[in-house]
Parts: sequence; structure tokens; C-alpha cells
Amino acid sequence: MFFEGSEKKIELITASTHGSLRALDSDFWTQIVSLAKADIISVIHNQHCDAYLLSESSLFVWDNRIVMLTCGLSTLIDSLLAMLEHIGVDHVAFVSYQRKNEYLAHLQASTFADDIARLRQYIPGTACRIGHLDSHHHFIFTSDTPCLLTVQDNTSELLMYHISGPVAEYLTSTEQTVEQICALLGLSKLFEGFDYDAHLFTPLGFSVNGIKDEHYFTIHITPQEQSSYVSVETNVDVNSPDNPIASQLLALLQPISWDTIGFNTPVIASAKPKNICLAHCSYPIEPDYHVHFGHFQQLDSEVLSPEFM
Amino acid sequence: MFFEGSEKKIELITASTHGSLRALDSDFWTQIVSLAKADIISVIHNQHCDAYLLSESSLFVWDNRIVMLTCGLSTLIDSLLAMLEHIGVDHVAFVSYQRKNEYLAHLQASTFADDIARLRQYIPGTACRIGHLDSHHHFIFTSDTPCLLTVQDNTSELLMYHISGPVAEYLTSTEQTVEQICALLGLSKLFEGFDYDAHLFTPLGFSVNGIKDEHYFTIHITPQEQSSYVSVETNVDVNSPDNPIASQLLALLQPISWDTIGFNTPVIASAKPKNICLAHCSYPIEPDYHVHFGHFQQLDSEVLSPEFM
Repeated sequence: MFFEGSEKKIELITASTHGSLRALDSDFWTQIVSLAKADIISVIHNQHCDAYLLSESSLFVWDNRIVMLTCGLSTLIDSLLAMLEHIGVDHVAFVSYQRKNEYLAHLQASTFADDIARLRQYIPGTACRIGHLDSHHHFIFTSDTPCLLTVQDNTSELLMYHISGPVAEYLTSTEQTVEQICALLGLSKLFEGFDYDAHLFTPLGFSVNGIKDEHYFTIHITPQEQSSYVSVETNVDVNSPDNPIASQLLALLQPISWDTIGFNTPVIASAKPKNICLAHCSYPIEPDYHVHFGHFQQLDSEVLSPEFM
Repeated sequence: MFFEGSEKKIELITASTHGSLRALDSDFWTQIVSLAKADIISVIHNQHCDAYLLSESSLFVWDNRIVMLTCGLSTLIDSLLAMLEHIGVDHVAFVSYQRKNEYLAHLQASTFADDIARLRQYIPGTACRIGHLDSHHHFIFTSDTPCLLTVQDNTSELLMYHISGPVAEYLTSTEQTVEQICALLGLSKLFEGFDYDAHLFTPLGFSVNGIKDEHYFTIHITPQEQSSYVSVETNVDVNSPDNPIASQLLALLQPISWDTIGFNTPVIASAKPKNICLAHCSYPIEPDYHVHFGHFQQLDSEVLSPEFM
């Protein structure tokens, strides 16, 4: 039982010369999503955002911004190139394209290097890898176009590996329900006042998108033993003392290791589970815009079991 | 500048019904080595062992035992299947086949699962993975044949990642010599009385085989930045208080992380560099024969640098 939870991600911001992205019809988004080898399962809307739940993660569309994440063996670069073709590079203010290291990279249709070679035929950009190849690492391409990023453009990602404890056990049980998962995660308190769209996959897996005004969050859970992975991404402050979202999710899901990626927001530290920051990095993609990366692991030495093949 | 230092390894023990493996002629070993996409560079002998230095690591041949390690994009499984064909499975007492996780697994000609599917057409065996897919891990197949392993069959492996310090710097310099590398490593003290065979590769890389009576050691150094890797394998006690080989090499090469694999000998602990055992495992492949695995990392949080692409 293996599923590749690790995601690829696009963020695209259009220039003011482009009309609203939300005016593009559903056939357009269906086509974009299908290019990544995914399907649209459902969609929710508010006055700012359309949030699509996909067979392989999520797509969020604002008037001038797209965030799309896909996991599994999806080919997200094909979606990005089609977006650039349709929108026109002259109307694009900023693009980033990211990949987390996969559990089984050899099964992917392309490497990050392959992807950015194609992307650079459309738009110039800077690409790098953060983290060693033999450990957790993160690839990121950002366009060199003069940028509209502001200090308000904060995004936090929390990527949890090898979850454990009662919630992790429930997530691999046969009788689970969407309602009970949302309750166990405490979503209504973590993300108060958000509209949700949640889906339980067969045989296993859970996705939820949430939107409230211009804020969004998305959580994807791949609970499969030996390759469990939970990703959380949001533009809500996850470090707020009143509502420390990241710390609460870490305490609930008890991952053996986790990464944090902060765009214009610092790396998240958490007291529980007791942990060590194995490696970290902070680097500017613009003078006032930093990407922060941290790789954490529980402090107790893990007793490994042989995985028979 | 990338070279895949991570090795694949065969250990094969013949039954008493088979003649001496050392009677096989040099054409046979040349052919076996070429099947792994490697070449024999040189050979040394003593009364017990022939030690071949290969373009991709090493081959040791005793009367009833073979140890072969190859790195890079070598196809060691092809060598093993040819050995089994030639020797005849009925004359084989024990086989193990191992792979360490590669830095860039997608470049390899086959996966471990592919390899053991072929191997099991010749000989039944138990295979497992130790360690998570997103961290250091080690694949091992051992034949189910009633075994001749004795408590004297001890092997220790020390696998070092991302070496640092003055010796690491020297190993990437342009003016290095075999003599100076041996002196910096202190080989004549670590392995006193051994005959050596050492080779410096172009543009970078160093291998040394050593033999003394029935003892052997082999060290392979891939010093390339971003993917540096040093492997040490020996049947000498590396934990001896009088000559703590493993501790001395760790202090010299200052790797960011390292793995230890002990066959019938415990995991090696070391005080320097200050470290944490992230994960460990001990499991029996026979009632009295255990494999021990440990994954260590320096305690200080590493400050990562973006690797531009």
C-alpha cells in the first residue's frame, strides 16, 4: 500500500493587464487539471476565491492569483505551461513552481530539472534545491520578472512524515468518516469561520479545502503506513499564540519528522513532539521576501522495523 | 559535479562441495566485473585472498567467499546472476545482496525490487528495507539456504555523507596524491601491517583495498561537493578501544550524517562529531546472526545553502 503524497505546486500571479482569472470558464479549469492527470471532484466559492478539490490535491483561483497543488504521479508542469500559453507570459507578474522530494522519485514522469528546462523556454527564473539529496529537500523555481509580492503575501507549509498516535490510527481504519476526521483534527477551531469542502478517498486518503474571505487552507492526508504524509498549506498565521495551528497539528499527528516552509514568514518551531531542527535555511527571492525552510525530527531515536519485500 | 558513491554489494559463500574460487581464471573475473559495467584496475594477493580494485569499487575473492561492491550506475545484479549460473546454486551456501539508498535513484538501471525479482528466480531468500524511504535506508536480500555463517563472520560498514573539514578539503584539491591521502587518513596506523592497493580517480575519487591474512578493508571516497560520500567496509574490529577505527575516521572526515551497518557486530557509537542516533534497528537473519543498522547525524542544526540549478 503505497501512495506518493509529496506535492508539486504552482503559484501564479497575473499582471494588472490581465482580466480576472475567475472569469475563465469551467472547461478551462477542467482542461488545466486534466493536463496534470487529475480530475475536479468538487468546488466551493466565496466572493474572492474558487476552491477546487482535485483527485490529486487542490486548485485555488483568485481574481489575479492561482495556487495549484498536485500529488501522486501528476504532471503539474504540463498544467503550468498550458496556463502560461493561455494567459500569455506578458500578463504574468510572478510564477513559482515547486516540488518536494518524493518518496519514490524514480516513478515520476520527470525530474525537477526536466520540468524547469521546459519552463525556462517560457519565462526566465531562478531555481534551486534546498536540503541534501539524501534527506528531505525542496526544489523551487521563481520567475525573475519584477514582482508584485508584498509583505502581505505570506504562506506557510507544514509537511509531516510518518504520523503516529490515535488520530493516525483512525485515519487508516475502515470505518472512518469525513465528519469524524474534521472533528479529530479540530478544524472548526483551527480554522474558525471557514467554509469547508472535504473528501475521503478510496481506499484511503483525506483532503479538505477551506476558504474565508481571502484566506485559504488545504490539508491532504496520505495515511498509508510506511509512506504516510500530511501536508498543510495556508495563508493564515500558523504561529499565532492564540491559535498555534502548526503546534496543534504536530501534537495531534505526532509525525516522526516534518518540514516547514515559510514564504515571508519564519520557520515554525514547536515544543511537541520533542524535536531537533536537523537543518534550516533562509534565503531571499526578492530583497524583502524570504523563503524559510526547516527540517525537524523527533528527538527520541526511532526503532526501525524491517519492511519485508 | 555529481558522482553516485552509494554502493551495491554481494556476499557469496560457496558450499564445501565447490572448489576454491581463487582457481577461477582472470578472464572469469574480468567478465564478472564487466557485467556490472566496471573494469579491473589492479589486484593484490596474499595467501588467503585476491583483492581487486575496480573502476567502480572492489572485489575480494577468498577460497570460499566473494565480497563485491560497486557504485555509480553499475549493474551488480548482473554479476551476481552470472556467478550463480557459473558456480551452480547447489554449490552456494549463502548469498546476500544489498543496496544503499542512492542520492539519485532515478538514474539507476533498476530498483532493488527489480533486482530481487530476478535473483529469486535462482535462489529463495528474504528481503527487506531498513529505514524510511524519505531518509537513509538500506535494502538487503539474504538467501534462505541453511547457512554457514559463524560468529566469526563479522563485517562492519561505516557510510559517511557530506564530509567536511581539512581532510575533506584536501580530497577535492587538484594537487592531491595517493601517498598524502593515505597519510591524512592515517591508514598505516588504522590498519597496521596491511598490504594496500590505492588509486586516485580522475577528476576526483579515491579507493583503497587492504588485506592482511584473512582480514580485509576497503575505503571508497567520493568527495564531490553536494554528494560527498565515504564508505568503509572491513572484517576488522572497528570498535576496539586500542584502535577505534570508526571513531577516528568520523573525527577526521566530520560527516554531517552517517550510517553504520554491523553484521554480527553492534552498531558503532562515536563521541565526535557530537551526534544523535536518529534511528536504529537490529534484526536476526539467523538465530545467532544479527544485522544492526544505525543512522546518525551531527547534533548542531545544519545551515543549508541553496543549490542553484
